Amino acid sequence: MSERPVVCARAGDLALLMGTDRRWQIVRLEPGQTVHTHRGVLAHDDLIGRPWGSRVVSHTGYRFLLLRPSLHDLILRLKRTTQIVYPKEAGYILLKMNIGPGSRVVEAGTGSGGLTAVLAHAVRPDGRVYSYEVRPEMQQLARRNLERLGLADVVEFKERDIAQGFDEVGVEAVFLDLPTPWEYLEQAHAALVNGGYLGSILPTANQVTRLLEALDSPRWGLVEVEEILLRPYKAVAARFRPEDRMVAHTGFLIFARALVGDGAPEEELQPAEEVEEGGEEEEL
Amino acid sequence: MSERPVVCARAGDLALLMGTDRRWQIVRLEPGQTVHTHRGVLAHDDLIGRPWGSRVVSHTGYRFLLLRPSLHDLILRLKRTTQIVYPKEAGYILLKMNIGPGSRVVEAGTGSGGLTAVLAHAVRPDGRVYSYEVRPEMQQLARRNLERLGLADVVEFKERDIAQGFDEVGVEAVFLDLPTPWEYLEQAHAALVNGGYLGSILPTANQVTRLLEALDSPRWGLVEVEEILLRPYKAVAARFRPEDRMVAHTGFLIFARALVGDGAPEEELQPAEEVEEGGEEEEL
Amino acid sequence: MSERPVVCARAGDLALLMGTDRRWQIVRLEPGQTVHTHRGVLAHDDLIGRPWGSRVVSHTGYRFLLLRPSLHDLILRLKRTTQIVYPKEAGYILLKMNIGPGSRVVEAGTGSGGLTAVLAHAVRPDGRVYSYEVRPEMQQLARRNLERLGLADVVEFKERDIAQGFDEVGVEAVFLDLPTPWEYLEQAHAALVNGGYLGSILPTANQVTRLLEALDSPRWGLVEVEEILLRPYKAVAARFRPEDRMVAHTGFLIFARALVGDGAPEEELQPAEEVEEGGEEEEL
Amino acid sequence: MSERPVVCARAGDLALLMGTDRRWQIVRLEPGQTVHTHRGVLAHDDLIGRPWGSRVVSHTGYRFLLLRPSLHDLILRLKRTTQIVYPKEAGYILLKMNIGPGSRVVEAGTGSGGLTAVLAHAVRPDGRVYSYEVRPEMQQLARRNLERLGLADVVEFKERDIAQGFDEVGVEAVFLDLPTPWEYLEQAHAALVNGGYLGSILPTANQVTRLLEALDSPRWGLVEVEEILLRPYKAVAARFRPEDRMVAHTGFLIFARALVGDGAPEEELQPAEEVEEGGEEEEL
Repeated sequence: MSERPVVCARAGDLALLMGTDRRWQIVRLEPGQTVHTHRGVLAHDDLIGRPWGSRVVSHTGYRFLLLRPSLHDLILRLKRTTQIVYPKEAGYILLKMNIGPGSRVVEAGTGSGGLTAVLAHAVRPDGRVYSYEVRPEMQQLARRNLERLGLADVVEFKERDIAQGFDEVGVEAVFLDLPTPWEYLEQAHAALVNGGYLGSILPTANQVTRLLEALDSPRWGLVEVEEILLRPYKAVAARFRPEDRMVAHTGFLIFARALVGDGAPEEELQPAEEVEEGGEEEEL
Repeated sequence: MSERPVVCARAGDLALLMGTDRRWQIVRLEPGQTVHTHRGVLAHDDLIGRPWGSRVVSHTGYRFLLLRPSLHDLILRLKRTTQIVYPKEAGYILLKMNIGPGSRVVEAGTGSGGLTAVLAHAVRPDGRVYSYEVRPEMQQLARRNLERLGLADVVEFKERDIAQGFDEVGVEAVFLDLPTPWEYLEQAHAALVNGGYLGSILPTANQVTRLLEALDSPRWGLVEVEEILLRPYKAVAARFRPEDRMVAHTGFLIFARALVGDGAPEEELQPAEEVEEGGEEEEL
Repeated sequence: MSERPVVCARAGDLALLMGTDRRWQIVRLEPGQTVHTHRGVLAHDDLIGRPWGSRVVSHTGYRFLLLRPSLHDLILRLKRTTQIVYPKEAGYILLKMNIGPGSRVVEAGTGSGGLTAVLAHAVRPDGRVYSYEVRPEMQQLARRNLERLGLADVVEFKERDIAQGFDEVGVEAVFLDLPTPWEYLEQAHAALVNGGYLGSILPTANQVTRLLEALDSPRWGLVEVEEILLRPYKAVAARFRPEDRMVAHTGFLIFARALVGDGAPEEELQPAEEVEEGGEEEEL
Repeated sequence: MSERPVVCARAGDLALLMGTDRRWQIVRLEPGQTVHTHRGVLAHDDLIGRPWGSRVVSHTGYRFLLLRPSLHDLILRLKRTTQIVYPKEAGYILLKMNIGPGSRVVEAGTGSGGLTAVLAHAVRPDGRVYSYEVRPEMQQLARRNLERLGLADVVEFKERDIAQGFDEVGVEAVFLDLPTPWEYLEQAHAALVNGGYLGSILPTANQVTRLLEALDSPRWGLVEVEEILLRPYKAVAARFRPEDRMVAHTGFLIFARALVGDGAPEEELQPAEEVEEGGEEEEL
């Protein structure tokens, strides 16, 4: 065990400081700087060169853990002016829409770049995220966020009203993170490879029903609506229990697949009422 | 729109056939074969060469969508003899443990290979999954599953009792998917880079409290327990509502970080009782 | 302890037989009869005269607990042709609508009588439940159900289309358990005492939004929508955990209060967006 | 509609004032007094004689609804020094333990009297609640709370350590609302009628498993653990959605039935693992 290499925090790294009270913050380490926490001050120079996973102490004697932040942590602390897609949804979106290394994905709008970062992280090094946003100041912010995370190189930011359509064709996935996705289904379909994945996240039931109406078309199939709930627990061995309060709602996730051909006359299409959970596992 | 390339199902591809009643199955397309569905028979030769996203019809006239399966779909249908980690948890694990292209991850046990597949898919092309399993027949099955998914090349399968320890040092993440993770914390710590991620999934509260007791040590920090719930909805515009029944429990997720140094005397360590949700977003 | 009176099952009583596998049924004890369970036959004469809480054995040697059924148990096993209001909602409705001994309550429609039974049980002996139903065969069934439960004496069944209005005025609570409650708000308001409670339960979000639109009027106030989820656990000390599956949705509960006067011009009415949870407890 | 009687607030009544921002408070109306809200002052004399369900205005012009508080509202605002049993659980407890008009119920400890109030309200006028509490100042507070609610007449308060046992025998239900219910099972069994209901509420999984161990005895049967979750929604027709945050945990509910006889040798008792939801409804 003793011979394993020890990795240390370096100037330029992002560092997470977690107090024993679980309050935390993220800083970029720069020689000569200081970080002001809720429990005293630490000098960056005392952090640079320290092994990740060390305990460090502020000038008031309060103890912090020095950790390399995960993408999960970084997204929760992204500078933002909009609601972000939370990690609990972002991770599920990746699997559900089959996004991984090499994927080509269109996203609109960019917003503060939270989901953009997750997508960019997942498609590296050969994939590509095309991220559309009509508000220049938003895209500016997102671009800066992605640059700080070192993920900007796989993202193409496009400041554009997507009513005009996307530049790309044949992408595997289009995610519409905007309030009126039903207005852009035509454009999304045009960008998607046949059989490709559409995704969206919407806060209200009213928006979901409008999107479901628009997706009730021979051009779309396998429409699903799901919600992801994250229930945190008190991590105390002698008093294990759910936390008193939780985030109860972020949004409804909607997924669909782009179909080809005219499909059937609509009356033949059976509504998705009687969802059967798929049968048995099988030798693929 | 018309000029976009159309991608078609080819011999050797895995194909998902989704009935209008939402029952589905996955087959590998092979010339001359037939697939027997719950609603009639289809010839593979009628599927090979068809565009993905097409509607196809069985000999009884029942309609199916022909879709390329996502990793999500494939995992749910993996041939298995053990409980698998579900996509709702697997996606979250990726983000929480910072796993992406290039990551080196240790997993034990392999089980049927469901999580192995998600990890392998995420770390490609340059990362590596080291997957330990003591039961030869399980690892055999997992190996075959991963080969069929085309993901075996980034996985090193090791048939081994991990009580002896892992071969690797300095990996970013260790995931313990076995019933008694508290017995292997020493080994996990030895494999992890300092500050690295430990994860586990356990079905019962009793197991969680035992693991929390074992993690209550200066060698581990930032211990968290969380549960992910997936609530499915009826995707019908005129009658939008949650499904009547849902999977209510798969497991509790436990995460921790490997620390360095002796830490403080234990009485100084404040329990994780008063979890504060991190304050404001920040310019990183 | 030994001197306490022992209460025994008598002819005419309803009895719950719970197998050790948790399968259960309810029978009315009648001399000379037999009950056929999923695990053998028992003679009623062997049950009559046995203390409640005894263990009894079928002819195949399978053990059952002999218990007096609770109202909760009875409602779950009510003969029914419609969806019933579940106990998890029914108990909450009582508290939320302030229904207790002596209350006068209007209900429409009667349905199979599940909620009628809970209301009748709660308002005894001096209260009254007025239960409206337009389908004669439904009311017939409900009446028989209530008689069997010994609760019919506080219920007035009315076979009537409530579009014509209710006979009662000044009741404390009106519960609309029918698919289009927004059509009967006028009638409900006319029956309620000023300040009285309106309640409804609806399965779909579409119905809820229609009802909310109709309740957005100076005649109604304090509109609330809530959902009650019941999560069952495995009651095993060594493997305590949530059950694998659960009932995920029965309905949305909607509550409102009947107001008097014209109210304010609508633009003054602030939407219920920013719900503050009430402040501190107080000396009443 | 016009001829219905109008009921007005009178001196001595408890009144709920609900602001259009949903902040609310409860006051007892007394001539000559004033109530200070978060949005200005109202004179009690302006409220006395006003119809319930009226709109009233503070001196700053802010509008409030004048409503008679429900038991639900009163409990949430009970003066308290302990955690209370919430209405979402209290209503379910009533049904599950078959408590209604005429029931005789033992409760320990009294705490601030929240559940005591719900029980007292439900058993009136002929039932009885025997409420034990070892801390004199708690029982004092609860007694005052119940008196203010006008529910004290059906409650017998007993300042006593229940390790000595309960005075009552043959009661239908015993509810243990204290941190170590496993210590008092003997006493509870002695107080219960054979077949009677035991209930408890506990915040942590550790407590639940200890209670389950103690209940794993031939003297107890039909042990169940359940959790009730209340999900609030934004009651806005055009933007219907779950609230952002919710109370995620109050406690686990545990129920059991008191059995008679020695029961079977323990090895015959099948664990409650394979809970079957009861089959079909039946003609009782």
